[in-house]
Amino acid sequence: MLYRNVAVQIRTEFGDGRFSPGTLLPSENDFVEAFAVSRTTVRKALRALEEEGFIERRQGQGTFLKKGALTRRVSSGMDFLSHTSLSGVRPGTRLVSYRRRVRSIAEQTLFETAAADEVFELVRLRLLNGEACVLQTSVLPFTKLTELPRRQFESRSLYKIVEQEFGARVGRIREVLSCAIAPVEVREALGLDDPTAVFVSHRIAHDQDGHVIEVSRNYIRPDRYSFVQESSSAEVMA
Amino acid sequence: MLYRNVAVQIRTEFGDGRFSPGTLLPSENDFVEAFAVSRTTVRKALRALEEEGFIERRQGQGTFLKKGALTRRVSSGMDFLSHTSLSGVRPGTRLVSYRRRVRSIAEQTLFETAAADEVFELVRLRLLNGEACVLQTSVLPFTKLTELPRRQFESRSLYKIVEQEFGARVGRIREVLSCAIAPVEVREALGLDDPTAVFVSHRIAHDQDGHVIEVSRNYIRPDRYSFVQESSSAEVMA
Repeated sequence: MLYRNVAVQIRTEFGDGRFSPGTLLPSENDFVEAFAVSRTTVRKALRALEEEGFIERRQGQGTFLKKGALTRRVSSGMDFLSHTSLSGVRPGTRLVSYRRRVRSIAEQTLFETAAADEVFELVRLRLLNGEACVLQTSVLPFTKLTELPRRQFESRSLYKIVEQEFGARVGRIREVLSCAIAPVEVREALGLDDPTAVFVSHRIAHDQDGHVIEVSRNYIRPDRYSFVQESSSAEVMA
Repeated sequence: MLYRNVAVQIRTEFGDGRFSPGTLLPSENDFVEAFAVSRTTVRKALRALEEEGFIERRQGQGTFLKKGALTRRVSSGMDFLSHTSLSGVRPGTRLVSYRRRVRSIAEQTLFETAAADEVFELVRLRLLNGEACVLQTSVLPFTKLTELPRRQFESRSLYKIVEQEFGARVGRIREVLSCAIAPVEVREALGLDDPTAVFVSHRIAHDQDGHVIEVSRNYIRPDRYSFVQESSSAEVMA
């Protein structure tokens, strides 16, 4: 793999909004192992990312994430189910797939305390009135989830499952909302035309002790779901 | 104009998130006048929109907006300037144009109490560190704004101008966030490739008495600006 590909890969994995500026990235060794390339290639990739201002390397301390899109904080939210029920819309879930797989280098950084090298990956379609509106991929450090029957993931909330099976209660959640041209598999899953813009939400959920217990990526149809903010003063771009 | 074009026009003007379900739409007469078409054409267009569930016609009461994307409420926000200053980013504004023009039929519904048939339209680029990140079109019922020198719109907050010149204080604000493929003029203004997805935010600002004093549409670069939500419990799609 060329160093440019390594640079693109690192930017993709760490630049999608899940990581705050200042995050300590994996070591050169970790990247060598993760991408199965030479140390020279990793060094060239890191140098390129440093030059474009994406990362910062501090002598003896490591490599830190520098650049991120400017973020605007919004607060409060509502549960998918209760929210949709309130709106008079019938919600549903269709399981697409689940499996255990080796974790990526970004997931290695996120699930730092997890013992296993593997993660559980769950792909679900969230439905509104029977229509697929959100394609959601959740990754969790609990590989034993593969032992559950598949219908559990359509009938129970994932957070309820994690709490009941592993005793992990969801604490702080951080969600970053962006948008992008829908990739082909998203278009097919959500029945969209090409090209179509979709919301992309990256969410990180921590447990009561601050450990990451879920990372999810959500592709959301903008014609079926939008975000509303109401405020009582000029706290907006004016 | 064919009735299909009229239907598309009505859907575009009233279906972009600025209007809540239940909004009373203009009368058949208003549409006849606004689009300069026959009553038969307007009736066919409204019938088509009724069949697709976009509007609801109630005998003797009028036509009401029915369908909208499901909205998720987010609350709180920060001023563009103070927010960007806090982030260590230098904000700026570049005036693109301003003019007075005849209001559209959607604006007629929004600015219901305004006496004049004309509105003031202001187009500005909002900059971050000198780079154009937001293309913002604001429409206000104050046509006298055309008398101000153009540099005022680069150096003063629009809400401050409105307060100081017309005594209208900004009260409740409603902002709906969606996303779309960037139209060509947006791509050019923001220096984007084709095709690129951008955030589209529609904002309505009311004064202290509940009258609409500004309607704005904002195209926002997702690689420079994103929205973050932090919560402390499972109030999200799980």
